[in-house]
Amino acid sequence: MRWTRFSHQDTIHYGIVQGDAVAVVDGTPFGANSRTGQVLPLASVKLLPPVIPGNFYAVGYNYAAHVGEANEFMPSTQKLPTRPEVGYRSNNALVGDGDNVVIPASSDGVIQFEGELVAVIGKTAKHVREEDALDYVLGFTIGNDISERVWQAADRTLWRSKNADTFKPMGPWIETDVKLDDLVTTVRLNGAQVSQFKTNSMIFGVARFIAEITKYMTMHPGDVLWMGAEAPTLDMRAGDHVEVEISGIGVLRNPIVRE
Amino acid sequence: MRWTRFSHQDTIHYGIVQGDAVAVVDGTPFGANSRTGQVLPLASVKLLPPVIPGNFYAVGYNYAAHVGEANEFMPSTQKLPTRPEVGYRSNNALVGDGDNVVIPASSDGVIQFEGELVAVIGKTAKHVREEDALDYVLGFTIGNDISERVWQAADRTLWRSKNADTFKPMGPWIETDVKLDDLVTTVRLNGAQVSQFKTNSMIFGVARFIAEITKYMTMHPGDVLWMGAEAPTLDMRAGDHVEVEISGIGVLRNPIVRE
Repeated sequence: MRWTRFSHQDTIHYGIVQGDAVAVVDGTPFGANSRTGQVLPLASVKLLPPVIPGNFYAVGYNYAAHVGEANEFMPSTQKLPTRPEVGYRSNNALVGDGDNVVIPASSDGVIQFEGELVAVIGKTAKHVREEDALDYVLGFTIGNDISERVWQAADRTLWRSKNADTFKPMGPWIETDVKLDDLVTTVRLNGAQVSQFKTNSMIFGVARFIAEITKYMTMHPGDVLWMGAEAPTLDMRAGDHVEVEISGIGVLRNPIVRE
Repeated sequence: MRWTRFSHQDTIHYGIVQGDAVAVVDGTPFGANSRTGQVLPLASVKLLPPVIPGNFYAVGYNYAAHVGEANEFMPSTQKLPTRPEVGYRSNNALVGDGDNVVIPASSDGVIQFEGELVAVIGKTAKHVREEDALDYVLGFTIGNDISERVWQAADRTLWRSKNADTFKPMGPWIETDVKLDDLVTTVRLNGAQVSQFKTNSMIFGVARFIAEITKYMTMHPGDVLWMGAEAPTLDMRAGDHVEVEISGIGVLRNPIVRE
C-alpha cells in the first residue's frame, strides 16, 4: 500500500495511491483512518512530504565507500562507524516530490545529493529488540539529503549545510510493502545515472538502528529515520534536476534553482 | 502575559496564567484563540511543555565561562565562538515542569544541568534583520539542557547525551513581557544555589541568532531556540532535584530518578 500526503483545492489530505489515482482518506496512517470514497487523478494533486515528523533522525556514515569519499574530498578523518549513531535534521528543510531545491543566495552555488532510504515509524517504540524492530515501521519512503559542502567544512555543526530551507526533499509516498534486500537505489542527475547501489548493503540496518535508538529514546508514529547514502555524490548547480529512485518505492525528483 | 499548556481531565489546553488560576483558552498562542470563560486553579492542572516545536534549535557555547569549563572537564578544545551557530535537539526528550528526569539504565548514573533561556517564535520569519528580530518572538520560557557527559565524550554526535527521553525539561510557561537585560538565571540543586548569572550576558544574543538563522531557514510559529548556559554545571544523581529560575519568567523544577 502506498500512503501519500497531498494538497488538493487548498486542503491537505492523506490518500492511498492506486495506479494513476488517489483514494482520499479521512485521518492519517498513524491513527484512525477511513476512505472517503472520493478518488482523484494523481496528476491533479500536489504531493507533499508524506509526513512532518515529530523527531527527524538521520544516520551519518552508513555505507563503506561514502566514508572514504568524505575523507578524500572533505577535511575529514572519518573512520567506519563501529556502532549505530544518529544525528538530527530539521523540518523547515522538508519539501515534497517535484518541489524546487533552492540554493541560498549566500552559498557559492554548489550543492550535492545523497539519495537515502527513509523508514517511517508507525507505532510507539521503546526498548525494542532488533528482531522485532521492523514491526514498528509503517513503511518506507525516499529522502535526498542535500548538502552544501563549503558550509559543512566551515561550521561546527551541520546546521546550514544540511538544513537550509528545501534541503530535505522527501517522498513521493510511503510504501508499506517492501523487501529491504531487494531494493536498489539509483540516482540520476539531469537524466544520467550517476550512482547505483544495493539499498540494504548498509553498515547497520534499519532494525539495528531502531533497537539502538529505542534504548534511549521513545520513537513515535510519524518519526522518520534517514538511513544514509552510498558514494559517489556529485556537484549540482541551478538548472540541474536530480532524481532518486528506489526500486519498489518510487522516484523522488527535484529541480535545483538559485535563490 | 503567561501562556501555559496543560492537561486537565485528559484534555490538553492552552491557558493564560493569572496568579493562582488559569483562564482556559480555545486555540493556541500561535493562531486564532479566545478565552472560554472557564477558570481553573493552577494547582489542579498538569503543566506540559508550553509548546511541541516544529523545529528545536539549540545554541551550543554562548557564555564565556562555560567554554572554559568544557575544556577543563571534557576531552574538548572549544574556542569562543566567532559567529552564531546552532544545533538541534529532539522533541522526544521534552518534559514539563515537575516531571521526572529519568537517567537511563544504561548510563553510569550521573547527569548535569544547563539552565537556559528559551525564545519561542511567534511569527513566520525569513531574512529578518537583527533590529527587527525580537518582533518575531512570542515570549520566553526556561529550558534545562540535561547532559550525560560520558556519552557526550564517547559519541560522534550529541544524540544520546542530550536527547534521551526526559532530558529536555521546558516550562513552566511562556512569558510574553520580558526585558532581556533585567533577567537573572539561578540554578538550585536540592535547594542550594549552585549557579547564578545575568541571562543576557551571552556571546551572541537572541536577536543576532534569529537574524543569522533566518538567512538560511524559515523559522515558524512554535519553533524554539534554546540560548545556551553559563558555567558551572554540576553532577546530579537519582534522588536529587534541580530548579532553574529566570527572574520575571518563573521556576522550572524537576526531580532526578533512575530508570
